[in-house]
Amino acid sequence: MTGLTHINASGEAHMVDVGDKAETARSATAEGYVKMAQATLDLIRAGNAKKGDVIATARIAGIMAAKQTASLIPLCHPLMLSKVTVEIEEDPALPGLRISATAKLTGKTGVEMEALTAVSVACLTVYDMAKATDKAMEIGGVRLLEKTGGKSGTFHRPEAG
Amino acid sequence: MTGLTHINASGEAHMVDVGDKAETARSATAEGYVKMAQATLDLIRAGNAKKGDVIATARIAGIMAAKQTASLIPLCHPLMLSKVTVEIEEDPALPGLRISATAKLTGKTGVEMEALTAVSVACLTVYDMAKATDKAMEIGGVRLLEKTGGKSGTFHRPEAG
Amino acid sequence: MTGLTHINASGEAHMVDVGDKAETARSATAEGYVKMAQATLDLIRAGNAKKGDVIATARIAGIMAAKQTASLIPLCHPLMLSKVTVEIEEDPALPGLRISATAKLTGKTGVEMEALTAVSVACLTVYDMAKATDKAMEIGGVRLLEKTGGKSGTFHRPEAG
Amino acid sequence: MTGLTHINASGEAHMVDVGDKAETARSATAEGYVKMAQATLDLIRAGNAKKGDVIATARIAGIMAAKQTASLIPLCHPLMLSKVTVEIEEDPALPGLRISATAKLTGKTGVEMEALTAVSVACLTVYDMAKATDKAMEIGGVRLLEKTGGKSGTFHRPEAG
Amino acid sequence: MTGLTHINASGEAHMVDVGDKAETARSATAEGYVKMAQATLDLIRAGNAKKGDVIATARIAGIMAAKQTASLIPLCHPLMLSKVTVEIEEDPALPGLRISATAKLTGKTGVEMEALTAVSVACLTVYDMAKATDKAMEIGGVRLLEKTGGKSGTFHRPEAG
Amino acid sequence: MTGLTHINASGEAHMVDVGDKAETARSATAEGYVKMAQATLDLIRAGNAKKGDVIATARIAGIMAAKQTASLIPLCHPLMLSKVTVEIEEDPALPGLRISATAKLTGKTGVEMEALTAVSVACLTVYDMAKATDKAMEIGGVRLLEKTGGKSGTFHRPEAG
Repeated sequence: MTGLTHINASGEAHMVDVGDKAETARSATAEGYVKMAQATLDLIRAGNAKKGDVIATARIAGIMAAKQTASLIPLCHPLMLSKVTVEIEEDPALPGLRISATAKLTGKTGVEMEALTAVSVACLTVYDMAKATDKAMEIGGVRLLEKTGGKSGTFHRPEAG
Repeated sequence: MTGLTHINASGEAHMVDVGDKAETARSATAEGYVKMAQATLDLIRAGNAKKGDVIATARIAGIMAAKQTASLIPLCHPLMLSKVTVEIEEDPALPGLRISATAKLTGKTGVEMEALTAVSVACLTVYDMAKATDKAMEIGGVRLLEKTGGKSGTFHRPEAG
Repeated sequence: MTGLTHINASGEAHMVDVGDKAETARSATAEGYVKMAQATLDLIRAGNAKKGDVIATARIAGIMAAKQTASLIPLCHPLMLSKVTVEIEEDPALPGLRISATAKLTGKTGVEMEALTAVSVACLTVYDMAKATDKAMEIGGVRLLEKTGGKSGTFHRPEAG
Repeated sequence: MTGLTHINASGEAHMVDVGDKAETARSATAEGYVKMAQATLDLIRAGNAKKGDVIATARIAGIMAAKQTASLIPLCHPLMLSKVTVEIEEDPALPGLRISATAKLTGKTGVEMEALTAVSVACLTVYDMAKATDKAMEIGGVRLLEKTGGKSGTFHRPEAG
Repeated sequence: MTGLTHINASGEAHMVDVGDKAETARSATAEGYVKMAQATLDLIRAGNAKKGDVIATARIAGIMAAKQTASLIPLCHPLMLSKVTVEIEEDPALPGLRISATAKLTGKTGVEMEALTAVSVACLTVYDMAKATDKAMEIGGVRLLEKTGGKSGTFHRPEAG
Repeated sequence: MTGLTHINASGEAHMVDVGDKAETARSATAEGYVKMAQATLDLIRAGNAKKGDVIATARIAGIMAAKQTASLIPLCHPLMLSKVTVEIEEDPALPGLRISATAKLTGKTGVEMEALTAVSVACLTVYDMAKATDKAMEIGGVRLLEKTGGKSGTFHRPEAG
């Protein structure tokens, strides 16, 4: 039977017990995008060209958010990330920015939420910096690309190639 | 000229000065969704039926995240929200959950980021609770529906009806 | 009708809208105690006698916690406290420590939760410092003594004298 | 001699060194209550009946607060909780709500403070949701029920049955 | 009489009451530096040349820290900053980086601590990024350059020119 | 070649991977000072004499800040400190206060940043408490005194004696 692990038999939310899980090396990679008007992407590119702060700000925000995951997501376990990276690149076809994040640790729980939180907050940061000129931007495609380690083993999103 | 307000002429990120802006009543509503397998939606419905904790947990997470917006988004101003609500409903057509959030305050800056952050974190919380059974869920459609107040006036997303 | 203000007609939790409330001077005073073995109280007195850090630590913890109230209590509004004080004194009759806290601001919402949170965390801090010698301590009597300002006017606990 | 472990020989507060302690499985259960008018308890029951948000909100607040313990209590060590649960039930005899919390981890320090903090913040959250109708509620009986693991071994409150 | 405003007549720390202070436009500018080996400065310059992330990371950290001032400094009032900027420039004479920060708001308390906190954390962030190659760096000269607004009026450090 | 470890080959900031590092006992001691007018130091001494809150407040602030290091410094790893101490003493020669902090843990990353953050925030707290009478105080000499454990081995600042 595969119920919701965070909801007990009585229907109450709780933080699941991971005390008996093995400490294994775990990693997770997630992705997402911010779709915007072409003119907005041009502005971001121009703004970033000078000192690089546009992309850097979103990257730092994503990395810092990954460390706040257990404070934001009620039933997430606190954990000690051993690595977080955030990649941001332009996608003229959207048009917009594509953002991916990878989180790693050796521990008892997976780091999917940390990678997804990093992506979400990096996307929100891009929205914040550009919202004065484009309120119609949309954040989407926020999903797990790959996950390794732990009892449930490796997950690799099929279409992720 | 409509550059990025958070990037100064030298290309450096900064928190824009809102000191001279008028204090007006402002509100913003944002939406998003978590798309999942039908079986996952069934599990969430079943888990929620008992005590309501599944949806309640996501709603509370969204409300609490709205209050952390300025800690998460580097260039957001701290502000004193006067109201936050989060609505979550099933959408069999996705299949999945649709989440919307409204934030209000009387102040010098808009509350779009607070509404968008509430939606994003509520979506992430749903993902967290269901991820043991469905790692392929996707968060999308995170966008501003409506915004009122402030110098830029009212924004109403056309297709939002 | 006097329902729960934080629960709407559908039974959903939300942060109530205080946008239309008047900004008035508000204050709240709360109290509580930590009851302990006499020997524990003696240790606290002795430990405090040297540099004062025992009582000071609890007082600082209470003041800092008042500022975190909106992060801890899901439906509390963020607000800008204009003053917080925490008083701690020995009560040989308990035996133990009695703690009271007063919070003030000029704003749209009351500060009862800030005063109660300051008391609770100061009590927990006392427990933490003494728990190696006395695990049976009990925190109790955490309640509002007085509240002024706002539409609901003044509240003064009868037995508070 | 059994002084206050968090106060050194000079009377100064410090975070004790747990570096040489063994990593063992540890758990702690604490309890507390919110005493209120019968009419207030009826309102909470009625409000909770619709979507369950009243009790769920307090439960989530307690779980999230457990994870903030080291940020709130000055001399607590940061630690990685492996489990947190919060139980809330009506007690017609009070009248009011009784709240208990259990925290677990495998680590070098006990989790009493995490369980007590979860109980305290869940109680405060109940107070917050009902305070518009009952300002005279009282939080009490916050104490440790049981503790296992660590050098000091098992503690079981006698009257806890 | 000019005692310590945060210590009352009994010697107890408290958050001073600013409830009766006028809301005025206030600003504060602070500065500081990180002194390092010439080779370290060269590395920072080289690392920053590619994407600008070295300086951007320190700048973002400083801005975000300004918003956490009331959480870090026990007796600081929470406040709503209307602007924060952080400037970082090389000083070959140190050799090292000079950092300055300006904070603004319209409110009842000054923003000196916000500016000083931004400078301090930006300096610490530089140290963090370069510490693998230079553990002997030193942070110094952290001080207030200028302050305007409020009852105490304008302060302008003499040697600041 | 010894580049900046937190900046990858493309010039992007990231949190370095410590997953393969060994868990070793690590400690770090840092120091700093607040230089002030003699009259200010006299006030602090007088204010502290009554209940000890002046020095205690700064010490507690430093300890609590050490636990927030990973939230403040963007690329710092979250870690579980096993000990933090902060020492504060008068230095008539400055005149002012000298502050040192020691942090310890058994883990995969060093604790230099935790010690330096504790010193910086303790210094800022002193500044905050005395700023009403002396705006010209200066924080300086913030640096690492000693570091043990980890692959890079022991660092001992030469002039530290």
